[in-house]
Amino acid sequence: MASVSGMSVRRPVVRRVLATGDAAASSVSRADTLAVEEPLEIRLGAQSLSGPGSLSGTEPFSVTMRTPGHDVELALGFLVSEGVITKPDDVVTARHCPDAASDADGNPTHNVVEVHLAPGVEPPSRARHRHMSSACGICGTESIDAVRSRSAFDVTADPTVVDGALLASLPDRLRDAQRVFDTTGGLHAAGLFTADGELLCVREDVGRHNAVDKVVGWAFSTGRLPLRGTVLQVSGRASFELVQKAWTAGCPVLAAVSAPSSLAVDLADEAGLTLAGFSRGTRFNLYARADRIS
Amino acid sequence: MASVSGMSVRRPVVRRVLATGDAAASSVSRADTLAVEEPLEIRLGAQSLSGPGSLSGTEPFSVTMRTPGHDVELALGFLVSEGVITKPDDVVTARHCPDAASDADGNPTHNVVEVHLAPGVEPPSRARHRHMSSACGICGTESIDAVRSRSAFDVTADPTVVDGALLASLPDRLRDAQRVFDTTGGLHAAGLFTADGELLCVREDVGRHNAVDKVVGWAFSTGRLPLRGTVLQVSGRASFELVQKAWTAGCPVLAAVSAPSSLAVDLADEAGLTLAGFSRGTRFNLYARADRIS
Repeated sequence: MASVSGMSVRRPVVRRVLATGDAAASSVSRADTLAVEEPLEIRLGAQSLSGPGSLSGTEPFSVTMRTPGHDVELALGFLVSEGVITKPDDVVTARHCPDAASDADGNPTHNVVEVHLAPGVEPPSRARHRHMSSACGICGTESIDAVRSRSAFDVTADPTVVDGALLASLPDRLRDAQRVFDTTGGLHAAGLFTADGELLCVREDVGRHNAVDKVVGWAFSTGRLPLRGTVLQVSGRASFELVQKAWTAGCPVLAAVSAPSSLAVDLADEAGLTLAGFSRGTRFNLYARADRIS
Repeated sequence: MASVSGMSVRRPVVRRVLATGDAAASSVSRADTLAVEEPLEIRLGAQSLSGPGSLSGTEPFSVTMRTPGHDVELALGFLVSEGVITKPDDVVTARHCPDAASDADGNPTHNVVEVHLAPGVEPPSRARHRHMSSACGICGTESIDAVRSRSAFDVTADPTVVDGALLASLPDRLRDAQRVFDTTGGLHAAGLFTADGELLCVREDVGRHNAVDKVVGWAFSTGRLPLRGTVLQVSGRASFELVQKAWTAGCPVLAAVSAPSSLAVDLADEAGLTLAGFSRGTRFNLYARADRIS
């Protein structure tokens, strides 16, 4: 039932249209294309003490609901966002789990990725992922402090300047580059562009955060971090989490098609990151570091 | 800087419009209204062994980024979705943490809610929240099994029938009921309606899942679970997680303004829950249990 890409499937649907004016009501059963959503488990291990080439077992680290495809990039990008890794040398191997289970038809499910960290790379504290603060009291400022402590890159001084007309054109270019959206209507996208408008990488997912993780994981794998001189364009809204991901990847400009949240703006202010919103065609809003947009 | 409701704030923004035809380019600095996003920590405790009225300390359970407001309902709805609680008697107290920290201006941040579970109510396993499967292999079927095991309610046999024209009208009615959306463009909404179209509860949040948790928490607090004979209308898309929340609350009909994912449809099929998508004005698609829509 899955498409060749594995990112969309066909499912039966009943389409009903109500009677309006002279048009009669209709109810038609047909097949519809849906975005695939499946769990991905990320497991972490280390090089074992017996030396190079020898890998330890892995332990479960996180489960995310995602659209299959670029799973290894998703896992790596997530680890960048969590402040665990910053350069290719930090990772010994990252791959689909060779022992992964099969589905009912005997096909590998490919829903587990295991990452072995290099010696000296500290695995994330479990506690940090369960809660950001053990004190009775938590606020946006503490959340921002937590991100600052894990971002290896400083974007404040990034001298990137982006032409305003170019920035406004990126949502349409992202949409053009999306292969799946038009058939399912259910996928978010993230696109990485140079300041001159060259498209470097585009990824899609049912989760906006996953699409960004896939882009960051691609950049990590190709040794491009920090992402100086780039623009990250996302479909939908700009949340705190997306600004965090841009900052930890060293990207100086984040642009969203829709609205940012208050804490997204606060974090962008703190990071010295340019944050654009409601970016569509001939206009956009700038919420932080407007000086980078000419 | 916060609005009276605390759900939106005013922040400076630079609005740029490109030159088009005879119209000159413009760049205007003004204030814009943004949706507030802040962390909420949910802490869990129990009645202590010294007897009724005596509460134990609490431990951090989860942190979510949410829009302030109806925080206790959010915490309770989240615990319903996790299969921890199903009826008011399962909870001894649920309240903002009385020791919660203050912000820089000395105002309480109200970002911590503590819930004390009644004797005999099993706190959720930490492990279950970190990963759904410890085996090397995880798939959509296992995710569905996990939800089935935690859903206290059976919606398959719910005899609710909803008029198609009524169903198609709910997105507009939800939008009308949203107090904040029109000023920020950044909030999702969830609305609970009777099968006759009476609006029971509407909640808003930067996170779609939080908006649904707030509605479910309201229903829990008022002793309305399971939500037989109701329709849950959400803005945006229908993910696996939203179907899970509808099922664990015993709601037989979930309608989304936009597309469902593959696993959302699979879970709705499994639960016997009616799933509608692309619901707008005069039309909608039915992905599961179309027989409930007349």
